[in-house]
Amino acid sequence: MTHPVTVEVTRGDLVECRHRGSLAVVDSAGEVICAIGDIEQRVFPRSAIKALQALPLVESGAAEALELDDAELALACSSHNGEAVHVSAARVMLLKAGLSEEDLECGTHWPKRLEDVAALVRADEAPGPLYNNCSGKHAGFLTLAKVLGMPTRGYVSKDHPIQQEIRKVIEEFTCAPVSEDVCGIDGCSIPTYASPLKGLARAFAVFGTGEGLEPDRAEACEKLYEACVNEPFMVAGTGRFCTDVMAAFRGRVFAKTGAEGVFCASVPELGYGIALKCDDGATRGSEAMMATCLEIMLDLSVEERKVLARFANPAVLTRKDVKAGEVRPSHEFVEALRAALA
Amino acid sequence: MTHPVTVEVTRGDLVECRHRGSLAVVDSAGEVICAIGDIEQRVFPRSAIKALQALPLVESGAAEALELDDAELALACSSHNGEAVHVSAARVMLLKAGLSEEDLECGTHWPKRLEDVAALVRADEAPGPLYNNCSGKHAGFLTLAKVLGMPTRGYVSKDHPIQQEIRKVIEEFTCAPVSEDVCGIDGCSIPTYASPLKGLARAFAVFGTGEGLEPDRAEACEKLYEACVNEPFMVAGTGRFCTDVMAAFRGRVFAKTGAEGVFCASVPELGYGIALKCDDGATRGSEAMMATCLEIMLDLSVEERKVLARFANPAVLTRKDVKAGEVRPSHEFVEALRAALA
Repeated sequence: MTHPVTVEVTRGDLVECRHRGSLAVVDSAGEVICAIGDIEQRVFPRSAIKALQALPLVESGAAEALELDDAELALACSSHNGEAVHVSAARVMLLKAGLSEEDLECGTHWPKRLEDVAALVRADEAPGPLYNNCSGKHAGFLTLAKVLGMPTRGYVSKDHPIQQEIRKVIEEFTCAPVSEDVCGIDGCSIPTYASPLKGLARAFAVFGTGEGLEPDRAEACEKLYEACVNEPFMVAGTGRFCTDVMAAFRGRVFAKTGAEGVFCASVPELGYGIALKCDDGATRGSEAMMATCLEIMLDLSVEERKVLARFANPAVLTRKDVKAGEVRPSHEFVEALRAALA
Repeated sequence: MTHPVTVEVTRGDLVECRHRGSLAVVDSAGEVICAIGDIEQRVFPRSAIKALQALPLVESGAAEALELDDAELALACSSHNGEAVHVSAARVMLLKAGLSEEDLECGTHWPKRLEDVAALVRADEAPGPLYNNCSGKHAGFLTLAKVLGMPTRGYVSKDHPIQQEIRKVIEEFTCAPVSEDVCGIDGCSIPTYASPLKGLARAFAVFGTGEGLEPDRAEACEKLYEACVNEPFMVAGTGRFCTDVMAAFRGRVFAKTGAEGVFCASVPELGYGIALKCDDGATRGSEAMMATCLEIMLDLSVEERKVLARFANPAVLTRKDVKAGEVRPSHEFVEALRAALA
């Protein structure tokens, strides 16, 4: 089936909602290990490829020149909650490059969590662009532009050398050229190119293993991988899948979500990359898909199993915290994963 | 096709997300005017049937005994934003019955809009159950219980006479019995029974016309219909579909959304009821479906057309308010509606 139901949401004894999607597991040679749904389709990877977008920052030596630490490199790969630690780290990154919040071209929005919204309200402040979930990535772009002597203004344009370089990285990692007609604007104003889902999975097999890369690039991948798994809080924040799963897995897995139901991951011990898309863009769908895939793919510790279950099978609660139903992977999705991976 | 794509979300030149769903248009005799997808499926109507849940309040004479006005009756049918006017009207309804916020069993959550969250934070308050989007409906239940001398405590239980009476109303309006095995708990703790989608459409044809009802019940339907279209702000609030569409349509249409992608409407001038479900539960999907159906079904004024377009075809914006894509009805959905309705 081209668009199988992968996740169900129940209430009482009935299925109330259904999410459909596709999932690819691919190794660094491009061999497809698992294909569910349509893995040839082009999907906008959105924030799921922030680690690839941060590669030029490391590979160029700019990160080293400015002594960016693991927390700052993880922030460059992040979609953060806009918690105090994220905002302050983004500010420091810009400071290290002699830049400020004024230079960010990502736009702004309120923090994800009510606590952080309330803190701003109490301080009678509105959020600036440092609060944008993409501010770390943008601070990385700006840092790179400054160190390499490129113009910092207009760094979000698809014609800016940084975005051109990132486009090349994506084409090489996915083994799939992109063109103007598959280019969209991301929420933070940078270009996003739609790549085949199986190419995105291949890209994260390569990112996690370095296989087939020139030594400098392989080293840059390793540096970013280590930064994210060492500082998972900087990649997302309180309660988030990417943070909690990377923290529990202690380096076994790199995982990064993107808007509109995209999720990518690297599993170096198996040499696999995972890329998935929930057709309708729902985060509860993409998270349940990724958690279920990791559950079936890996031998797990009790702690690892526990954190995945929170996302593979969360309860649906009433406003009085009584369980009314649950999110769960569909039987056919689990069977397809087992057949390919178990 | 059983689960057709009804709504697409684009970015650049590509479709980034797809929502699937089903839609039924039925008249009060139960004749199916338009069937898209699976209209026999049982769906939890959730908050989309609040007007039916409010019928016993009016039919019993309790609303009249306590001199509930149109704004209060509309609030009894509402899923409100928790704006100041909603909270204060719910408080007054309870006061009229000699009750208070303490009697509400719906649980609580923060208001929908940032402005209202900020007002609470500034006042150093947390939201009580009056802020729950269902507080008006619950105030209606409590008012009814008090006037009829029933116990107020436990009014959310499926065994309470009010919930039993509502179950009978739903079975009669949908022409479809419900049973324990299709009963779920709604987010506000009351029972929600899954009914066939075409039955829900029939129910709103009857609600909008009174056709086939005993005079007292027909009068109660008319009273609630008029209350909602006269006081649409009380049914939802700032920027919301139900409020803005009912305000623009000045009595031509009654529309009420529910959680997880359900939407019901009455169009008395045609004698039709509409019920739809977006499979994945997305509000952007259910709103685009309802707006598109009304666009195709009715001759529209400029103002009516304008408000529907906001929901049938909203822009997807970047954080800098640049248009990156759009939500739009699928070609096949539009063609199916036109074939049945135009």
